[in-house]
Amino acid sequence: MAISVGLIGAGRIGALHGRNMVATAGVDLVGIADALPETAGALGLELNAPVRSAEQMIADPAIDAIVICSSTDTHADLIEAAACAGKAIFCEKPVDLSSDRIRSCLKIVETAGVPLMIGFNRRFDPHFSALRTRLRDGDIGEVEFLSIVGRDPMPPPLSYVKRSGGLFRDMMIHDFDMARFLLGEEFVEVHAVGSALIDPEIGQAGDVDTAAVMLKTASGKICQISNSRRSTYGYDQRVEVLGSRGMLQVQNLPESAILHAGAAGIQHGRHVEFFLERYADAYERELRHFFDCIRDSLPPSPTGNDGLRAQIIADAATQAAQTGHPQHLAEEAATGI
Amino acid sequence: MAISVGLIGAGRIGALHGRNMVATAGVDLVGIADALPETAGALGLELNAPVRSAEQMIADPAIDAIVICSSTDTHADLIEAAACAGKAIFCEKPVDLSSDRIRSCLKIVETAGVPLMIGFNRRFDPHFSALRTRLRDGDIGEVEFLSIVGRDPMPPPLSYVKRSGGLFRDMMIHDFDMARFLLGEEFVEVHAVGSALIDPEIGQAGDVDTAAVMLKTASGKICQISNSRRSTYGYDQRVEVLGSRGMLQVQNLPESAILHAGAAGIQHGRHVEFFLERYADAYERELRHFFDCIRDSLPPSPTGNDGLRAQIIADAATQAAQTGHPQHLAEEAATGI
Amino acid sequence: MAISVGLIGAGRIGALHGRNMVATAGVDLVGIADALPETAGALGLELNAPVRSAEQMIADPAIDAIVICSSTDTHADLIEAAACAGKAIFCEKPVDLSSDRIRSCLKIVETAGVPLMIGFNRRFDPHFSALRTRLRDGDIGEVEFLSIVGRDPMPPPLSYVKRSGGLFRDMMIHDFDMARFLLGEEFVEVHAVGSALIDPEIGQAGDVDTAAVMLKTASGKICQISNSRRSTYGYDQRVEVLGSRGMLQVQNLPESAILHAGAAGIQHGRHVEFFLERYADAYERELRHFFDCIRDSLPPSPTGNDGLRAQIIADAATQAAQTGHPQHLAEEAATGI
Amino acid sequence: MAISVGLIGAGRIGALHGRNMVATAGVDLVGIADALPETAGALGLELNAPVRSAEQMIADPAIDAIVICSSTDTHADLIEAAACAGKAIFCEKPVDLSSDRIRSCLKIVETAGVPLMIGFNRRFDPHFSALRTRLRDGDIGEVEFLSIVGRDPMPPPLSYVKRSGGLFRDMMIHDFDMARFLLGEEFVEVHAVGSALIDPEIGQAGDVDTAAVMLKTASGKICQISNSRRSTYGYDQRVEVLGSRGMLQVQNLPESAILHAGAAGIQHGRHVEFFLERYADAYERELRHFFDCIRDSLPPSPTGNDGLRAQIIADAATQAAQTGHPQHLAEEAATGI
Repeated sequence: MAISVGLIGAGRIGALHGRNMVATAGVDLVGIADALPETAGALGLELNAPVRSAEQMIADPAIDAIVICSSTDTHADLIEAAACAGKAIFCEKPVDLSSDRIRSCLKIVETAGVPLMIGFNRRFDPHFSALRTRLRDGDIGEVEFLSIVGRDPMPPPLSYVKRSGGLFRDMMIHDFDMARFLLGEEFVEVHAVGSALIDPEIGQAGDVDTAAVMLKTASGKICQISNSRRSTYGYDQRVEVLGSRGMLQVQNLPESAILHAGAAGIQHGRHVEFFLERYADAYERELRHFFDCIRDSLPPSPTGNDGLRAQIIADAATQAAQTGHPQHLAEEAATGI
Repeated sequence: MAISVGLIGAGRIGALHGRNMVATAGVDLVGIADALPETAGALGLELNAPVRSAEQMIADPAIDAIVICSSTDTHADLIEAAACAGKAIFCEKPVDLSSDRIRSCLKIVETAGVPLMIGFNRRFDPHFSALRTRLRDGDIGEVEFLSIVGRDPMPPPLSYVKRSGGLFRDMMIHDFDMARFLLGEEFVEVHAVGSALIDPEIGQAGDVDTAAVMLKTASGKICQISNSRRSTYGYDQRVEVLGSRGMLQVQNLPESAILHAGAAGIQHGRHVEFFLERYADAYERELRHFFDCIRDSLPPSPTGNDGLRAQIIADAATQAAQTGHPQHLAEEAATGI
Repeated sequence: MAISVGLIGAGRIGALHGRNMVATAGVDLVGIADALPETAGALGLELNAPVRSAEQMIADPAIDAIVICSSTDTHADLIEAAACAGKAIFCEKPVDLSSDRIRSCLKIVETAGVPLMIGFNRRFDPHFSALRTRLRDGDIGEVEFLSIVGRDPMPPPLSYVKRSGGLFRDMMIHDFDMARFLLGEEFVEVHAVGSALIDPEIGQAGDVDTAAVMLKTASGKICQISNSRRSTYGYDQRVEVLGSRGMLQVQNLPESAILHAGAAGIQHGRHVEFFLERYADAYERELRHFFDCIRDSLPPSPTGNDGLRAQIIADAATQAAQTGHPQHLAEEAATGI
Repeated sequence: MAISVGLIGAGRIGALHGRNMVATAGVDLVGIADALPETAGALGLELNAPVRSAEQMIADPAIDAIVICSSTDTHADLIEAAACAGKAIFCEKPVDLSSDRIRSCLKIVETAGVPLMIGFNRRFDPHFSALRTRLRDGDIGEVEFLSIVGRDPMPPPLSYVKRSGGLFRDMMIHDFDMARFLLGEEFVEVHAVGSALIDPEIGQAGDVDTAAVMLKTASGKICQISNSRRSTYGYDQRVEVLGSRGMLQVQNLPESAILHAGAAGIQHGRHVEFFLERYADAYERELRHFFDCIRDSLPPSPTGNDGLRAQIIADAATQAAQTGHPQHLAEEAATGI
């Protein structure tokens, strides 16, 4: 029996998930909704799926799962509606920009007892996922220090920046989740600094484009993250973990295996262009995990709580950068990261 | 109007091409033949295509193209039959182990005036194909020296070795084609040495497992190729070109972006496993080129003549290694390599 | 006319400088002092120089320059005595563990008008020095973000840790100086975290063995530094600078050009062993700069003020890590970094 | 008791050896001869050694060893004279361009019973020497295939080319010696091709500037060497060995640890400039070995026979390239390579 899925949101990420769904055996895409009917229509044409409204799909008892890729401000409401209708839910990060709203939303999901998975796709990247396995296997002994670098090729439009919740909630949130995923521990302390060095208008909008964070777990492990909204040499996504017995890195993926040597030196090509290329595998494996969990009646991961925890850290980092004061996080049990 | 295709041969490569075809828009796989009916049946089931005989498909006027992946000794006959029936033909390398047989076969194809493409898939690897473009663009000036390294993870079964035509015709033929493809010139001189160092039984079967070749073009360009049937560190496929203004390399593709540093040093993982993984893109792009050419009424490449030329070099290399005497090749116009 | 030099301190670093001096044309090592007479004697025998007391050498009008490599607690007094005697002075870092004591000492040096150079040897490493040149030349446009990683192969003896002033003053001080050297700006804000993860006894002694720092300049540039007292894969010394037009890294120096490929993957050897090997060139070029400055009557660099500034940052980092509160530094003119 | 040495030849290599000798404890440079008195005088001034004639030094019973760095055509005569005078002899490669002349010269050395070492300096490069040790230790199992790449930054002056004996005797001879050194076996078969692609005048002078060679040992091991007289990206010196259990490479040495990333890609700097920089360590260790052997009454290596064997291969390669016919080498016992 195939899993019937309704897709809400047909933008860049919705289209990506839609294409991955139609290529997945055992999954039927039975409807596409979007705030812009022509966007839904175009994707529906491509994927041979009817345009329907979100409400209609949530109300349809023949639909098993809802995949939410609409704009952030609609996520929590849609999750709640779908949960009450008994659907399995996959929702792009974040659940909401307010962690209080996330909490109330997750309570309803819990009461409904439906599976909810949050789209922290990088956990499904084969390299990061292999890294986590090697860390858990004790490949480098006890983990002591984690360093994450994330740099985008160029800043998003200012209009996007303004409603993004700021760099820590919009961009670094992926790294906060990755840090929790790799360390398997919760952070208790957040230090943050940020500057608007790339575009003064970003600063005037109250945001930063260059930022660094230090985090500490209760056991004393230290994590360092830095982000930049611009990288002329291409998308930069690196992770390094130092342990008592060695060090592991995930390096960038080169776009080409070609090396050129000339009078100016030895030159490798650029990295893979941006997140759609870099994380193409991850997006595919992420949805496959969601559907496999539905099929096997297992709880999917990352969970709503993972979404909440990352948001709490992002809030604290934003606060720390704005006030200049490190923030303390309530120590919670690190269960099932 | 979709292109109707009949697939002959449902082994490892036939299955690969079959899967690529069903994933290609505008191509209909309308029949699968194999000497072993159950092999054809299994693939037919997977790809939702009927099992039919080769003869039947060649005779069927509704079929536009034939893709030949059966055993080498059937290639020439099938090409001739399909040519006479007016089909567009894609055939895995080699056309035949005898270059005389290839010549007579190509004559029939020429008379029939049908498109024939030979499966030198590596030309379609994005890295090698980009290398050729950069060479043609004069990226390193005049090309002077070409070096190709090819090492398989482990020798094939002895039974395969015995009917393979020998290392130069079975394995190094890919490198001969690559050398012609990259240099755009024909070779006039072939020097070859070989040894059976990995498995003495390969030597007793009259073949070698470790070999090197030097080739020279009429203009004096030098090409060096080495092959080994064993590489404990994984599939090894490297090309290096030296020119008057610099050097270009295609390096191996790492399987993982993970680097491990420990007491023993700095360690990268292995290369991608073997040819099916290494050249997955190439296989896909190769067939796409074939179908694009049919659609646009353009001649596909590599041509039957490319298959013949590579075979002639492989024959000469075999002869050179066996006799200890370099072989001279009749100078032919290097047209359209 | 050769420069006559008295060497105070014949330990590991004193011996290194002594050997470099006798190999330098135009420099005469005319005396060696050490708290342990046999240590001075052994080095004197090796370098063919007489053992003399520090006082005697400082008082000797025939001596032009004093090189101070004795224990930290003697530096300030020796600098003052040598300054009053009109000598040119080279002193290993730090001038003192108290920045107040450094200030009073520098005042006396200023009054005496003698040249004083502080031994931040890494500035003279050819790679870091080339990096600074490229940054000043605008190679990557405007500098936005600096990241420094420093990891020692293993912690020093606990006895050393106890009188070291702590990781920030003993180990990270090199990175503070490097950061000022590369950015050419003063820092105004210091955030620090530290843990004792390698050896609990280091924690019981009030110090940390794993630490990270974030610094910010008045113009908003961000600097991130991390240190560990243990690196099983060898001495780790990396710098990365992100600018508006690109990125520059100084990578580790491999000990060997040998690469091994086997069933386990592709393996490079370890980095050069430790600071004496890694910075051998830097130590040599550092002293040469000192003597060149004396000969040409130019002020040597790094100056006493550079020593003071690095110490002030190290004090602030120590304070920040202990209290959990970021420290603000008085904004001073960044002159002549 | 110091070893008294007379240096014959004060050109580039003579000066290098002279400088290394005066820096070696236990060695006294007691005289310098050169065909050009002012060349000898300048070096004598620098190294504080008297100018003397070659004959006078060879006749002087107070001199223990003669280091010969004069022009090639004087080597054999000087070796014979020094041997008859009972001196230990170090001679730059080659002994002579004629292998018959080498044979007669070595007979006289053998009769005289004096130590003779030939300056194949690359054997003393720490990387190649470590490679040999790892091969002997069975690091990659049984060796099957060896590949050597040698490329000079630019061709020597045409006047030098004309009296050099040709590329195989002048440049590739180093690789022939390296191949014997690494494999520990003699070659029985030589195939060679060459072209003049860089400078037609080199071709008009009867030489080549681009060449490749294949060699085979009696046990079937295969060696591939390629040389070019031009490399725009710097001196290129690579060795790769394939064995039954893995592969070992000696890669080029980068001049700088700096990596630059920008819009054009990821760029490393050039390799170390040329042989004087690349093999500085090797030259030093080579002479140290010579003097250590004298001191310990041990036979130095590489021997006169090593010089002869490399020359025989170079002769055969020259012949093979000119005639187009592979050459067979008399199988000789591979003793003490």
